[in-house]
Amino acid sequence: MSKSLINKACTTIFFVLLIQSASAHRHKFLKRKLPCKTLTLYLHDTLFNGVNAAKATSSAVTNATGISKFHFGELVVFDDPLTLDQHILSSPVARAQGFYFYDMKNTYNAWLAFSIVFNSSDYKGILNLMGADMMDQKTRDVSVVGGTGDFFMTRGIATLKTEAAQGFVYFRLRLEIKLYECYY
Amino acid sequence: MSKSLINKACTTIFFVLLIQSASAHRHKFLKRKLPCKTLTLYLHDTLFNGVNAAKATSSAVTNATGISKFHFGELVVFDDPLTLDQHILSSPVARAQGFYFYDMKNTYNAWLAFSIVFNSSDYKGILNLMGADMMDQKTRDVSVVGGTGDFFMTRGIATLKTEAAQGFVYFRLRLEIKLYECYY
Amino acid sequence: MSKSLINKACTTIFFVLLIQSASAHRHKFLKRKLPCKTLTLYLHDTLFNGVNAAKATSSAVTNATGISKFHFGELVVFDDPLTLDQHILSSPVARAQGFYFYDMKNTYNAWLAFSIVFNSSDYKGILNLMGADMMDQKTRDVSVVGGTGDFFMTRGIATLKTEAAQGFVYFRLRLEIKLYECYY
Repeated sequence: MSKSLINKACTTIFFVLLIQSASAHRHKFLKRKLPCKTLTLYLHDTLFNGVNAAKATSSAVTNATGISKFHFGELVVFDDPLTLDQHILSSPVARAQGFYFYDMKNTYNAWLAFSIVFNSSDYKGILNLMGADMMDQKTRDVSVVGGTGDFFMTRGIATLKTEAAQGFVYFRLRLEIKLYECYY
Repeated sequence: MSKSLINKACTTIFFVLLIQSASAHRHKFLKRKLPCKTLTLYLHDTLFNGVNAAKATSSAVTNATGISKFHFGELVVFDDPLTLDQHILSSPVARAQGFYFYDMKNTYNAWLAFSIVFNSSDYKGILNLMGADMMDQKTRDVSVVGGTGDFFMTRGIATLKTEAAQGFVYFRLRLEIKLYECYY
Repeated sequence: MSKSLINKACTTIFFVLLIQSASAHRHKFLKRKLPCKTLTLYLHDTLFNGVNAAKATSSAVTNATGISKFHFGELVVFDDPLTLDQHILSSPVARAQGFYFYDMKNTYNAWLAFSIVFNSSDYKGILNLMGADMMDQKTRDVSVVGGTGDFFMTRGIATLKTEAAQGFVYFRLRLEIKLYECYY
């Protein structure tokens, strides 16, 4: 009786382990995780317009092509400050370094890839991001595809929101970053 | 006797758990998984040639450099329709938005990064891809490095195949996308 | 007595499994792993200067903008040989294909994305990388965001070090690549 109970127990546990092991290898569909870290940052982009070199943090390096009126093909390189609040003059906690270009014929739409370079007392390290920036949507998600330093091997999603824009000279983006793979 | 059996059982299970746990942390080499999702899409790229602005979906934004005859350095921005079959006039299920550039001196070869923006009844969300496009190979693999929406945090590989080309004005790529990390 | 022992054992094991399972789903913080593969490669970049087309392996495709004196906005496309030692004339084991651009106003700083295309007896396959290249730091880390072939679905970190530079015509980078997710 007691032996048969042990047998049953062992059999059950064996199958639980087997299923665990099998699911670990197949990884068919994974349960969505909660973020292991969230960060909110504000990006300030001041585009060079020929006369604001001292203030500008970005500059177009190609001309728009004749294919559309919405700057299609204009590629902009940036090195923008990131702050913890909405004020451009707040002390930056990181830099966003990368590029974006306009890529739609019938509206303003962009694509971007950049690194968030942290160099504060809170974080040392880098997040690398890329994705489509569909500017006519209130918020849009881009991928955090990797990280280094304090963000070793991380992945996640950053939600961008344009909060302010002054023509083509200045815009402010809110970045809500959610990381789903963190290492300590 | 029964106690010793229990002890044995417990000891065995303890070591199984220990090994599982250890292998989970070391992750030395992982078994190749089967795809959790596969998608086949056809990309249609119509390059702006100065007179086809209405039809064109891509445009060169830099000139080739004098380093070679194979367009080395020409960078093209695109917003191309993706269809479920090979016909350019089929209703697109997604857009491929990004850029490619030619990067070889002695043959045609490209590098690209783009987003597949889904907006159909089947999928809402984005896949982000990048990689080398070695055009003289029948098929070539690029990385799916992230995703959003229905493709939350996904990763995988897309196999590209050039199926048709009309000079430098049109080409059609077959994208066989295999995702190996899916979340529900 | 023996039954109660079995019960205790089963209860304990049940909770161990439960905790394992829960931690697997939450993935709150993961332990840093050891690399599953390390590679050391040397990248040789010879920039086209108008007269060295035969030797050059990279070429600027945009002009620096007027925003700074440090080449801000200059974008360079490259197809550079990678060797196992520091000698540029050693037989290349791979090519680094991609682009970089300068992106800082007050110093030389770059951002890059590229593929390492292996085609040797040791490896067939591709690593895809991106990140900030903060040139004034002795070493800087960029992300390996994906791979194909022998590097199926890999991820990791590459540490770059500028070992030699001859003005703007030649530089050599040491790439110390550590992969943390490998599949066999």
